[in-house]
Amino acid sequence: MTIWYGGDYNPEQWPRELWDEDVRLMQRGGISLATVGVFSWARLEPRPGEYDFAWLDDVLDTLHAGGIRVDLATATASPPPWLARRHPEMLPVTETGVRLEVGSRQHYCPSSPVYREHARRLVLSLVERYAAHPALELWHVNNEYGCHVSHCYCEVSAAAFRSWLQAKYGAIEDLNRAWGTAFWSQRYDSFDEVEPPRAAPTFRNPTQLLDFDRFSSDELLACYQAEVEVIRAASDVPITTNFMGFFKPVDYWRWAPHIDVISDDTYPDPADPRSPAYAAMVRDLMRSLGGGAPWLLMEQSPSAVNWRAHNAAKVPGQMRAWSYQSVARGADGILFFQWRQSQAGSEKFHSGMVPHGGTDTRVWREIEQLGGELRRLSGAEVGLGGSRTRASVAITLDWDSWWAVEQPASPTAVSYVEILFAWHQALTSLGLTVDFVRAEGDLSGYRVVVAPTHFVATDAQVENLASFAEAGGSLVVGFGTAITDEQLHVRLGGYLGEPLRRTLGVRVEEFAPPAPPDLRNTGREPAPPVLFDGEFLGGAGAGSVWSEYVRVDDAEVLATFTEGPLAGCPAVTRRAAGEGTAFYLATLPDPAVLRLFVSNVIDAAGVPIAAPATDGEQVEVVRRGDLVFAINHGSADAELRLAGTDLLTGSNASGLLLPPQGVAVVKP
Amino acid sequence: MTIWYGGDYNPEQWPRELWDEDVRLMQRGGISLATVGVFSWARLEPRPGEYDFAWLDDVLDTLHAGGIRVDLATATASPPPWLARRHPEMLPVTETGVRLEVGSRQHYCPSSPVYREHARRLVLSLVERYAAHPALELWHVNNEYGCHVSHCYCEVSAAAFRSWLQAKYGAIEDLNRAWGTAFWSQRYDSFDEVEPPRAAPTFRNPTQLLDFDRFSSDELLACYQAEVEVIRAASDVPITTNFMGFFKPVDYWRWAPHIDVISDDTYPDPADPRSPAYAAMVRDLMRSLGGGAPWLLMEQSPSAVNWRAHNAAKVPGQMRAWSYQSVARGADGILFFQWRQSQAGSEKFHSGMVPHGGTDTRVWREIEQLGGELRRLSGAEVGLGGSRTRASVAITLDWDSWWAVEQPASPTAVSYVEILFAWHQALTSLGLTVDFVRAEGDLSGYRVVVAPTHFVATDAQVENLASFAEAGGSLVVGFGTAITDEQLHVRLGGYLGEPLRRTLGVRVEEFAPPAPPDLRNTGREPAPPVLFDGEFLGGAGAGSVWSEYVRVDDAEVLATFTEGPLAGCPAVTRRAAGEGTAFYLATLPDPAVLRLFVSNVIDAAGVPIAAPATDGEQVEVVRRGDLVFAINHGSADAELRLAGTDLLTGSNASGLLLPPQGVAVVKP
Amino acid sequence: MTIWYGGDYNPEQWPRELWDEDVRLMQRGGISLATVGVFSWARLEPRPGEYDFAWLDDVLDTLHAGGIRVDLATATASPPPWLARRHPEMLPVTETGVRLEVGSRQHYCPSSPVYREHARRLVLSLVERYAAHPALELWHVNNEYGCHVSHCYCEVSAAAFRSWLQAKYGAIEDLNRAWGTAFWSQRYDSFDEVEPPRAAPTFRNPTQLLDFDRFSSDELLACYQAEVEVIRAASDVPITTNFMGFFKPVDYWRWAPHIDVISDDTYPDPADPRSPAYAAMVRDLMRSLGGGAPWLLMEQSPSAVNWRAHNAAKVPGQMRAWSYQSVARGADGILFFQWRQSQAGSEKFHSGMVPHGGTDTRVWREIEQLGGELRRLSGAEVGLGGSRTRASVAITLDWDSWWAVEQPASPTAVSYVEILFAWHQALTSLGLTVDFVRAEGDLSGYRVVVAPTHFVATDAQVENLASFAEAGGSLVVGFGTAITDEQLHVRLGGYLGEPLRRTLGVRVEEFAPPAPPDLRNTGREPAPPVLFDGEFLGGAGAGSVWSEYVRVDDAEVLATFTEGPLAGCPAVTRRAAGEGTAFYLATLPDPAVLRLFVSNVIDAAGVPIAAPATDGEQVEVVRRGDLVFAINHGSADAELRLAGTDLLTGSNASGLLLPPQGVAVVKP
Repeated sequence: MTIWYGGDYNPEQWPRELWDEDVRLMQRGGISLATVGVFSWARLEPRPGEYDFAWLDDVLDTLHAGGIRVDLATATASPPPWLARRHPEMLPVTETGVRLEVGSRQHYCPSSPVYREHARRLVLSLVERYAAHPALELWHVNNEYGCHVSHCYCEVSAAAFRSWLQAKYGAIEDLNRAWGTAFWSQRYDSFDEVEPPRAAPTFRNPTQLLDFDRFSSDELLACYQAEVEVIRAASDVPITTNFMGFFKPVDYWRWAPHIDVISDDTYPDPADPRSPAYAAMVRDLMRSLGGGAPWLLMEQSPSAVNWRAHNAAKVPGQMRAWSYQSVARGADGILFFQWRQSQAGSEKFHSGMVPHGGTDTRVWREIEQLGGELRRLSGAEVGLGGSRTRASVAITLDWDSWWAVEQPASPTAVSYVEILFAWHQALTSLGLTVDFVRAEGDLSGYRVVVAPTHFVATDAQVENLASFAEAGGSLVVGFGTAITDEQLHVRLGGYLGEPLRRTLGVRVEEFAPPAPPDLRNTGREPAPPVLFDGEFLGGAGAGSVWSEYVRVDDAEVLATFTEGPLAGCPAVTRRAAGEGTAFYLATLPDPAVLRLFVSNVIDAAGVPIAAPATDGEQVEVVRRGDLVFAINHGSADAELRLAGTDLLTGSNASGLLLPPQGVAVVKP
Repeated sequence: MTIWYGGDYNPEQWPRELWDEDVRLMQRGGISLATVGVFSWARLEPRPGEYDFAWLDDVLDTLHAGGIRVDLATATASPPPWLARRHPEMLPVTETGVRLEVGSRQHYCPSSPVYREHARRLVLSLVERYAAHPALELWHVNNEYGCHVSHCYCEVSAAAFRSWLQAKYGAIEDLNRAWGTAFWSQRYDSFDEVEPPRAAPTFRNPTQLLDFDRFSSDELLACYQAEVEVIRAASDVPITTNFMGFFKPVDYWRWAPHIDVISDDTYPDPADPRSPAYAAMVRDLMRSLGGGAPWLLMEQSPSAVNWRAHNAAKVPGQMRAWSYQSVARGADGILFFQWRQSQAGSEKFHSGMVPHGGTDTRVWREIEQLGGELRRLSGAEVGLGGSRTRASVAITLDWDSWWAVEQPASPTAVSYVEILFAWHQALTSLGLTVDFVRAEGDLSGYRVVVAPTHFVATDAQVENLASFAEAGGSLVVGFGTAITDEQLHVRLGGYLGEPLRRTLGVRVEEFAPPAPPDLRNTGREPAPPVLFDGEFLGGAGAGSVWSEYVRVDDAEVLATFTEGPLAGCPAVTRRAAGEGTAFYLATLPDPAVLRLFVSNVIDAAGVPIAAPATDGEQVEVVRRGDLVFAINHGSADAELRLAGTDLLTGSNASGLLLPPQGVAVVKP
Repeated sequence: MTIWYGGDYNPEQWPRELWDEDVRLMQRGGISLATVGVFSWARLEPRPGEYDFAWLDDVLDTLHAGGIRVDLATATASPPPWLARRHPEMLPVTETGVRLEVGSRQHYCPSSPVYREHARRLVLSLVERYAAHPALELWHVNNEYGCHVSHCYCEVSAAAFRSWLQAKYGAIEDLNRAWGTAFWSQRYDSFDEVEPPRAAPTFRNPTQLLDFDRFSSDELLACYQAEVEVIRAASDVPITTNFMGFFKPVDYWRWAPHIDVISDDTYPDPADPRSPAYAAMVRDLMRSLGGGAPWLLMEQSPSAVNWRAHNAAKVPGQMRAWSYQSVARGADGILFFQWRQSQAGSEKFHSGMVPHGGTDTRVWREIEQLGGELRRLSGAEVGLGGSRTRASVAITLDWDSWWAVEQPASPTAVSYVEILFAWHQALTSLGLTVDFVRAEGDLSGYRVVVAPTHFVATDAQVENLASFAEAGGSLVVGFGTAITDEQLHVRLGGYLGEPLRRTLGVRVEEFAPPAPPDLRNTGREPAPPVLFDGEFLGGAGAGSVWSEYVRVDDAEVLATFTEGPLAGCPAVTRRAAGEGTAFYLATLPDPAVLRLFVSNVIDAAGVPIAAPATDGEQVEVVRRGDLVFAINHGSADAELRLAGTDLLTGSNASGLLLPPQGVAVVKP
């Protein structure tokens, strides 16, 4: 099966005479798939209801003639100026009441019937015209939903929010109970009185905020589904929309079932040494969203992006190394934004596959090299495309928890994803592949499940996690878990929920989070680390982010806090729970300690860890199907110990010297 | 007399069946006073004009049956959503024109006739129903006036501001003169042309800003008085409203005469080592606002709050120690927010007397312990309740100065309260109790008066301060004093005003403030400290915040600047003025130097200082009536040297070892 | 010819009886010119159409009687409140839609016909009344155009912007091409659809932003020209408006031809050690804007200003030293804001020539001393007034480049002026005087031209720079030059534009800017410096701000990057181009290295450098006409080596010891 290779192709930015050269260059570069039309609405419909498809016919025909398949966008991501001028109420409004203007992109209120109806009409026209086009490989709905405008506070959104709430709660008293409006005199007498959480004198109602997060994600999903409905009625070609990794505003768990092929836009900062590890986590999420199915890396940059305050170029080889990371973790395609670097507009300094400098450039040479390699790896004898990357360890991921734990008026400021990242890194550094899962899902395929700061937990989730341990799994619960139910009502009596309290054998009496290191109160010393001691964690260790008063009802204390008012309180516990084991951590151990902890948990759970592929930790090693990928993210050469043949060089992998940014694809 | 003990009680957040348990628990915890109804408007008046008092009858009757007295709130602090929906113009507007929405609390324009009228009607209904209720101990008007919305810039406020200005100035030319509108072409031709100081291209008129600060404080006071008027017509029960310590937007001097019992909400940060000293200053302010009368600590947290970026838990004993600090400094009651920690809403992570974890918790145990102790100390034989804490040293405090000196377009950015705090700490660390006073008030009861950065001074204030020295007092004037009159017109000829210039024997030629340490101009070195030298201050010393060119007309130079362009200029002066002494400081000496200076001033003034109660400085010692309170805020044990009996343990106080957070109440 | 001396005179802030004393004091202080009426509109026209000139007659007559000449302002800088109340649409609006209110100054939309018409009427009345007044020396139009409000986003501005665009582009398709609206679906179907670049979901169209910058500068110029037209019709007296140094919002190159006498307001921070060097650059700009003609220092502060967060006083002598810097660099007048320090209003803490403390102050004494000196230097025998300061080295300055290179969505955040400053300092520290020039101007008078980060370059500019080198000049081109044309369309094929690529013999393949030192990404090390090596720059050196992949087609490599992915790439190149030489720098060398580079370039170009005037670098030395000015900005004495007589002391200059802040004016 093919490993797709290509990128966003925006020929409308260039004269017609370049298009033929584009196709010739694509062929030379090994390009097999081009995404077309993402930002073409204003060109396709220059005036209301007046369509111009001739140029797009030409584009598709030209690509098809050149053997390039097409990922055809619905072009609804950026409405034309005329729509805003005719219907200014379709422009989005911020929480302080600023109506955002035309002039960039994504300037639409997700709840706007005007926007949705005009988008629907455009999609209908596109589908009618191109559903049967022979170049069509994939439908690409909209683009990066919510990237700039995920929450809208206009009157139209307010009305939609009221409808959403009425559908959810039915009776206003149920909303009052859920939102806890008895506090601060917020009782609503009817749904008509409810507004979005606009700027207010102080902290807004937390459940209102959470419901508005849910509503906002749902409204975007409704936009997506409205387009899908039009396409499905006339086309069997698969549909995708491009995700953006760990993207807080949109609950991808709710979206994924409606998407035929998961795809992702990913732009790790080349200057950040944490990027390879963070990107690995993102790839694992994409695979997990699709239930393990192959996915597409829909967008990455050939070199620098242009939207950071500082935009580092990728160093030579870095683009290739990061591309293989995606393939290793389940991607069946590597695409870029964009084919030809723009000459004008807001992204002209975003690198392109064909840079401003042309093809006598290192960027183009790397594009061409990778294209050739992926074409060779697409051969049926390799067995790469369509194969699976499998995991026996999972981390729970939950958008409600993410939204809630980062709300203001919380015990301390935490980053949900940073906590997940700490766990993912600890596990990955042991050579394990990790899935992300929903806490209420089927966990039976895993030996170890980690639930880090699963702040908002339904009864079903609490019970499912507890059952996983009772049924023989190793369950690791991090602080800040099941603090509330799905209405943000605190779980009284020690947090965690009764089933988890029983399974873990602990309850939490009081939070006592340490001050974050960057706290800058006048006259205050930098916060000391949280210190603890315990054999299971290799003796004395340090943690951060959190600590608390934990009470042990029935568990073994693996580590104990040693300093400050918490001295003597349990920091880490373990309980033999039914057939399995349940761990609780009242802080976030520092990376080395966390790695040791995780290693002991894995060992005890009997999860097999492959022998290390190299001496150091700089080389990422991932198995996909029968192949083992090794990628050197470090700054020194690394000698491989893998048995087999490197498909990229044809050499024997054992003893192979991987340079920095080097990659081997080893067939045993 | 009773030392009250209790807290905010919000039973409407909980099922009826818990209420009886609440009262039983209150009895067990020694609770004597419950504040009820602070955020109950939407529950009491669920629809316009439709009242529901049955549940509140039940609450009051249940408390009364249990022997708990009631501080009954007027419930006007957070209007119900229906009021805003029916009268959106009652919502407040920020200076950039954002209308703040329902969804948190305090969402009303203080000048709104709609708000005031609806509040008045609610209060009338409450008074009619409960004025004669046997549980009623205190009326609690509104809540934390101005906490989130102190200044409103809407059209209604604009009209009210114009009326306020017309009443103050009478003729528009008087406003023009006062505001100095000849500068920047701001002359108004009629009051109709005046607006609140909304966002403008650059610095707004300073006197307009100051008048708007005064107006805003007055409008909130008018809200308070409107409610008081309704209550007074039907009830003789005392009235309070809860202050918030050093709260800039509201001029508590103007409010205090209208309040029967001063009460305060106080939330020092448990993680900030400066908190005990800062809180001591706040307690002294509350006592001073009531003219020395006992006051109520209306709200504090049992442990953590939830509204900081990071919310530390109080360490074991800290809540108790800080509670005794208030009692020592004049409080006749210790109350908390809130009784039962909320299960939902914006303050669910604000600790409660009954925590989420229930009563088998260290928080509840500490609540119960303190309740028992205070009940014992309430005994008539102890003589604590109603007794007075007295001071012979005073610091002037002035809201006009606070507002003005922190305006933009000033010589340098200073924090008025930080300057007061430096002086308060220096005096308190010597074992002195300090009052805050108005500069125009009767100062004859004090031996030493400090006027730190009394920036805006009326003629009466300047003369009163000068007279205090001439009549035999020791007057200490800090830089930045009497720079302007009450219209913010500069006092020409050397600042300070003619009487003070004569009494001090100095005039100020020019300000030359040092750069603050955190100034981050590119390529600029961190600002060096201000250096000076002089025997009276113990030799060479350093200062900060300010320095200036002072000219001595007739005074003794006690210290001289030694570095930079000011080298050789006077830093500290003294003059024998009439029967007394007048000191001037042109900088803020560092704490140790300031303490030595203050000590010398105190010595010379013949103010008696009690012998130190311990070796170190970590123990706060305060005399109230006949009792001496000792509180150990340090991290090591401290041995007491006080003669008498510790009423808390019954032990001999002399030689008693106070652990960290330990307290002794010593009867000689 | 006279060196003017004086300042803003606002007698309307003071009682009439002070005016006569003012004139007597002015005479004592050597004042020859007073700026009158800058903020007098509300006083001159207290009600619509009702003028009051009597007081201004009095002011002008009184000054004239005292021999003081008048710089008469048109008083249009701050409209009276009544104008805004009658025509609220004349108030400016921010990009987030906030309408800025009366209460400070400059509260007008520059495109407002209401404002312009009322201003025109006022100017007409002033001109009619005072054109023939014998005191009149200069017309002073408005004040600091754009200082607070340079861009307005209201509906009136939107309409004006559309007209401006229509006039520029003619057809909407030309705008679409220029703005690159094919990207992000921004195609406009008519000019009616275009709006100002208001707040939008993400990065706004770069060419729209640039055109809006151009439009905004033009609209202010149109305001200026509307007033000039009225004056010119009735008066031959010269006209000025006061510039503000390197002021980004206004393109002074486009303004300068319309101004008779260039004048500047300048407020370097006395606490910033970089201020003297930065101010020198500003003086050179003012001289350059007037084509070398004498200019006026229209405003500086006698000591502190009041609008910084921290406002340092000038140290004794600093005001005088900085005043002579202006004279040395071409100023024929030294004026201050303002004569008498205000007693009220937003600038009461801005120092005045007559301070709050009166005339027995060091500030007044320094004012008086300088006045006397300048009067003596005004003598015809001295030959100072009207004489020229000449330069043989020039730096290109371009507002389009400034606006564009600091736009968001660029490779990295750079400060255009900081880059210019680095070059100016390097050249000035060698004792050279530097002009600023337009890249398309006549460069034939210079031996060396530096084009630093000339980001936006027209074809004419690219060709003119290349021709300068080909014709025998030494051209130094810095990174980031000619990246785009004037429509912000990237110059493909290696940037720089074809003529410059040929002249330099290089092309740029890809940007790879280093991270700025203050980048605070979590877990990221501080960015290392850019390192390079090369004899011409004195061996190994370090740079910052920028680095890139440069390809040499035909040039000599003078330095090579030595670290990171760029190791081995050219950092600095040189090519013999026609009769001249062309250098290219791919980074910004650190100051010492840059100075050495510049020194080598200057040497090779045969530009004569005067022998150093002292041992160290702390003394600024500038030749104007026949006189040499030496100013000691350091903190130690410096011994002069200049032959001739110091006109200030009459001493022999050789061996003269200049103290810190000391000045010598040496006649050879």
